Amino acid sequence: MTTAGASKPPMRDALVAAALQLFEERGFDQTTIDDIVALAGVGRRSFFRYFPSKESVVFPDHDGCLAEMTAFLADPAGDAEDPVLRACDAAKLVLRLYSADPGFSVRRYRLTRAVPALRQHELSVVWRYERALADYLRIRFAARPDGRLRGDVIAAAVVAGHNHALRGWLRADGEGDVHAAVTEALDYVARTWESGPGPAADEPEDDVMVLVARRGTPMWRVVQGVQTALDHG
Amino acid sequence: MTTAGASKPPMRDALVAAALQLFEERGFDQTTIDDIVALAGVGRRSFFRYFPSKESVVFPDHDGCLAEMTAFLADPAGDAEDPVLRACDAAKLVLRLYSADPGFSVRRYRLTRAVPALRQHELSVVWRYERALADYLRIRFAARPDGRLRGDVIAAAVVAGHNHALRGWLRADGEGDVHAAVTEALDYVARTWESGPGPAADEPEDDVMVLVARRGTPMWRVVQGVQTALDHG
Repeated sequence: MTTAGASKPPMRDALVAAALQLFEERGFDQTTIDDIVALAGVGRRSFFRYFPSKESVVFPDHDGCLAEMTAFLADPAGDAEDPVLRACDAAKLVLRLYSADPGFSVRRYRLTRAVPALRQHELSVVWRYERALADYLRIRFAARPDGRLRGDVIAAAVVAGHNHALRGWLRADGEGDVHAAVTEALDYVARTWESGPGPAADEPEDDVMVLVARRGTPMWRVVQGVQTALDHG
Repeated sequence: MTTAGASKPPMRDALVAAALQLFEERGFDQTTIDDIVALAGVGRRSFFRYFPSKESVVFPDHDGCLAEMTAFLADPAGDAEDPVLRACDAAKLVLRLYSADPGFSVRRYRLTRAVPALRQHELSVVWRYERALADYLRIRFAARPDGRLRGDVIAAAVVAGHNHALRGWLRADGEGDVHAAVTEALDYVARTWESGPGPAADEPEDDVMVLVARRGTPMWRVVQGVQTALDHG
């Protein structure tokens, strides 16, 4: 790496690239902040202008992404949207951050698996996103007696669904369509709570289904019966 | 605190009590491990026999609780139970740990709110429980195409529901019935996914319900109709 030439990255990017390279080559614990600034060709004080700690240097864009998510959720334009779908859309801002640079994301993923300090830092990053989503959902569900609990539970489910798909992609070295995978996982979460889409336009509207059940029938059997009729009818 | 006398606690308990007292009195950052062992009246090596770090000393029983949870989930006695209900019961082992010593739990809660290093440590403690629940649920849902995703999402929801109720109790200085609050929150999560209880014993068994719906009717409307019939029929 060199800091000279036409393609010279900004100082912050140079620090991130140097840190990642050294963590991979020498190990996280064996790398000092002095090593990073030396390789990046910047002064020690520059490091702390951008990053509060050695851990945070490989999670450089999450503060900005969290601010973006918070602004997105605060935008009145989303007030008409289903709250759960809005939270899922907000989570996709994190996906966009990871998918913008697959190579970097995959390298960082490998490091976080191997270095407990980075894993712990990542948990606090994820936790901040989850709190932002929960704060939003609690407000949207404020009229419900279960609003705060519902907000917390759905926020956790959104984050878990998003990260399930994202981690699958990272484990596969960034191969495959991560946008489709995350969308599918978030749809799964959304279907659990939101009211679901209306009937498809090309579906016959006057096709009638009749279900007969004893009143004691468990709900899951009723749903199973309905689903089977819809799928195979 | 003294280490002499009839009520002398085991060395490990003495270290925990000393650490909590010093973190409260001087602050976490201003307390060294040497300060803790001096107050506890034990040697420095004893500290590291029990705890890998200064953070872990105020989360002393979570390794044991995680082992208990893992054993509970591995017990074939639970195989006949609904997987989600079983995961909820497993989460209650954590509740039991917190409610066994409300005074200690409340003091630690205040510290974790104030000290980022302890907050981060707590996140990794919570994450380990969530992984244990997810690993269990993934196996129980292994036959489903969505089994791994479902396992991750439900594990996150169980943890969020449990912690929602637990944190409410800790914020209220340990006042109120935390068992009832956690049970209510976990019932909320369980109702979202599990098949629901069977019919009540006193329900007429041959009471028949007939539901007629257009085939295009969204599933949620069908379920709503069935639920309304069951509730008010």
